[in-house]
Amino acid sequence: MGSLDSNPASFDAFAADAEGFQPLNADDVRSYLHKSVDFIYDYYKSVESMPVLPGVEPGYLSRLLQSAPPSAAAPFDIAMKELREAVVPGMTHWASPNFFAFFPATNSAAAIAGELIASAMNTVGFTWQANPAATEMEVLALDWLAQLLRLPDSFIMNRTSGGRGTGGGVILGTTSEAMLVTLVAARDAALRRIGSDGVAGITRLTVYAADQTHSTFFKACRLAGFDPANIRSVPTGPETDFAVDPAKLLEVMQADVDAGLVPTYICATVGTTSSNAVDPVGAVADVAAAFNAWVHVDAAYAGSACICPEFRHHLAGVERVDSISMSPHKWLMTCLDCTCLWVRDAHRLTGSLETNPEYLKNDASDSGTVTDLKDMQVGVGRRFRGLKLWMVMRTYGAARLQEHIRSDVAMAKMFEDAVRTDDRFEVVVPRNFALVCFRIKPHGGMTEEDAERANRELMEGLNRTGKAYIAHTVIGGKFVLRFAVGSSLQEERHVRSAWELIRKKTAEIMSGDKVSV
Amino acid sequence: MGSLDSNPASFDAFAADAEGFQPLNADDVRSYLHKSVDFIYDYYKSVESMPVLPGVEPGYLSRLLQSAPPSAAAPFDIAMKELREAVVPGMTHWASPNFFAFFPATNSAAAIAGELIASAMNTVGFTWQANPAATEMEVLALDWLAQLLRLPDSFIMNRTSGGRGTGGGVILGTTSEAMLVTLVAARDAALRRIGSDGVAGITRLTVYAADQTHSTFFKACRLAGFDPANIRSVPTGPETDFAVDPAKLLEVMQADVDAGLVPTYICATVGTTSSNAVDPVGAVADVAAAFNAWVHVDAAYAGSACICPEFRHHLAGVERVDSISMSPHKWLMTCLDCTCLWVRDAHRLTGSLETNPEYLKNDASDSGTVTDLKDMQVGVGRRFRGLKLWMVMRTYGAARLQEHIRSDVAMAKMFEDAVRTDDRFEVVVPRNFALVCFRIKPHGGMTEEDAERANRELMEGLNRTGKAYIAHTVIGGKFVLRFAVGSSLQEERHVRSAWELIRKKTAEIMSGDKVSV
Repeated sequence: MGSLDSNPASFDAFAADAEGFQPLNADDVRSYLHKSVDFIYDYYKSVESMPVLPGVEPGYLSRLLQSAPPSAAAPFDIAMKELREAVVPGMTHWASPNFFAFFPATNSAAAIAGELIASAMNTVGFTWQANPAATEMEVLALDWLAQLLRLPDSFIMNRTSGGRGTGGGVILGTTSEAMLVTLVAARDAALRRIGSDGVAGITRLTVYAADQTHSTFFKACRLAGFDPANIRSVPTGPETDFAVDPAKLLEVMQADVDAGLVPTYICATVGTTSSNAVDPVGAVADVAAAFNAWVHVDAAYAGSACICPEFRHHLAGVERVDSISMSPHKWLMTCLDCTCLWVRDAHRLTGSLETNPEYLKNDASDSGTVTDLKDMQVGVGRRFRGLKLWMVMRTYGAARLQEHIRSDVAMAKMFEDAVRTDDRFEVVVPRNFALVCFRIKPHGGMTEEDAERANRELMEGLNRTGKAYIAHTVIGGKFVLRFAVGSSLQEERHVRSAWELIRKKTAEIMSGDKVSV
Repeated sequence: MGSLDSNPASFDAFAADAEGFQPLNADDVRSYLHKSVDFIYDYYKSVESMPVLPGVEPGYLSRLLQSAPPSAAAPFDIAMKELREAVVPGMTHWASPNFFAFFPATNSAAAIAGELIASAMNTVGFTWQANPAATEMEVLALDWLAQLLRLPDSFIMNRTSGGRGTGGGVILGTTSEAMLVTLVAARDAALRRIGSDGVAGITRLTVYAADQTHSTFFKACRLAGFDPANIRSVPTGPETDFAVDPAKLLEVMQADVDAGLVPTYICATVGTTSSNAVDPVGAVADVAAAFNAWVHVDAAYAGSACICPEFRHHLAGVERVDSISMSPHKWLMTCLDCTCLWVRDAHRLTGSLETNPEYLKNDASDSGTVTDLKDMQVGVGRRFRGLKLWMVMRTYGAARLQEHIRSDVAMAKMFEDAVRTDDRFEVVVPRNFALVCFRIKPHGGMTEEDAERANRELMEGLNRTGKAYIAHTVIGGKFVLRFAVGSSLQEERHVRSAWELIRKKTAEIMSGDKVSV
């Protein structure tokens, strides 16, 4: 039948297994991983002394490593050597305890272990059948975390009577994806509601968020096809500590309705990236209800804090929103990537995202008794992210997780207190969590422009030392320094050193500017 | 200044560091990771003997593990014990050498090591400054892989004179994301071209792909807001081995233009999921050129094979397309997730995806001399995926990678030959790579319906044994079995055993059906 093999229906003609290349040879795996663990051990022991922000120039790496791929194999030690000598010196060390920029990427021994095991098992759990354990572990981890956050039962897949409610959750890679998939679900629902023929009605749909909302929200709106002219950035100001004013939101939405437009989606943020402002979730939900608009809560960073009773009030009203996402990779000691999304009505999401190709059909999916997580995300393939999140909660328990949040907040508060006791500085907005927004304030004859220049100089000078890394933002027109506590190796002494360095640099700048300090 | 601390501008008031919880204590990290490595070693040694597809019922895991998150911490061994006893028995073992379903998720010691180190460093390289080494390593790894694939220089960031051309690449999580971001770029370009006021013109834009294209493409089109009525699925048939017919594509596109519509995007697949059909890339590009439509090549699976000269012809014409993506996590021994996307004009992509919030502004980005990879993807956050891909190429070299592809293809060919020598079976479409699409053919008085029933029974019976896992598809109306070689632990003996099992099961089915064999 087209084969030259004369030995029918048998494998006798197969050659004996050659001693070929074995990419997953267990001994090699163990050896490579042990070398990697040694590297990691050394890295954690020494990262504190490395410059947080490297002093490399663009293109540095291509000058150190070969520009063409090797044709022959090389011992793994070669890759490790180049990692040490070429890669590490060009790293921005997010794991450094002297990292105070952006939001920290928190991490833990249990999370890395979970990620490692998931990488080795390397399953692709797009459907329940493709990995029942991964799907169920993800559901369980989301259920546990929802309990820690005291989310209403309506968001939780297995909590209503009969086992399955309408709620559901999924672990995604980024908040942006959580926004995108919920935007698409809301978009499709609104199009149906207005009887749009296909997407023709999309030019009437409007979306809303405070001007402090992460830029990725506005990008996600464009990705989902919303008209740029219909993406509303609601102005905020110091009178609400840069949170959205529900009255203003109502006004903007009503004006749109009066103009024949269709309010479709509102994103409320609990802990903005810029300054940790908290939009009032319940009040936003109440405004949205009048317009039948989808409300999403982005609690990427501050959601983790809400596992502590003293911070949970920031989610008050969450039972009236449609979806909420938060990222344990930001502040719940789970390495990248891990963004949890819960929706109140999973069918609204899967209705827009479901696919059913023949090659993925199986009895379990057909039975309707299982969740196929591919139908709650952009892609099909998916890593076994539930394992690391579960391992973190299983190993540390609510107590340690809360202790960790509280410790970070306490360190941030101490930093804040120190800033407040130094007349040259001001804390620009109230500190809600572990981020302190401060600046050298105009004093001793300085103008606002002088202050901006001094703060830029302070940030850049500080970052150039390699001994600390802080970032900035602009709040209410002011150039502001962001000091984010929480890197997982951080202790009080690191915060203390950074503050001393800030004081020293500030003194230098002030004397250099011939401004008395 | 609002603080009760009477000791100004100093940290003397700070308490001494408490012996608090240290989530990244280096000794704990080493201990947890060593336990994980031991687990992985045992897993690879024993996965062969585990049922590939587990026999668990929906909800099984929640019956084994506690339903509420623990409040207290527990030794890491507890999580490991529950992993072994509750999770592993419910896994579909993609790492098993008896896994022949879907496409395999290939993996290697070097990839797992790279992923582990990246997880421990846990950087978020959204901008170059946020991790220069990660950005440059990603660019380098993409450059190396582009060289292995002999992609034209126009796709490569650092290959044109002067250092930077218009091309560019990025590592994403899934092919779906690669499709989505290029669809959005093409959509925005088409809207500008037709002078659309905002997205009003979107109802005129049309997109195209063969009916064999992965369902995720049609989903990505809907995510990007294309009108469902304008998403064309071009019929294919056995006369082109289920690849798209350029003449038919031209016809459909011309008809759309005649109707006042605007052809915007075509997805050509090199190695479809269903049957490994290969759309003729060059011919598709030629058709598209007449309409100024974006051509994307999805080579998710088969792209890896194109590092071998004997398979490279499947990409012929790639110099005339706009973008190409392929997933080393499918067949280049790199654990999930790793999808490489190259575009010929990176500005067309970043033009749609760029964000520039104040808190991410930095001198390097402002200088225009660096790439900020967040502007080529959906989200902002991103893992250090370049490391594992680079480690794979650095350690195994082109030679081993090619050897690996060839070994898989040879095993698939042997399976194919065996199928062809058994009169009860047929190979349904030509085998292009390491996927064999076959079935029990109607024989001995069997109708087409009998054959479908027998093939379903064979697949389900086989999968129930736990000794092999194969999947199915429908090609040209026929229910077909997919036998995908390539799981990284696979050797010839596993293929041989699977074939013997298939023969045995088939004999059972045939005798049970009272059909002579």
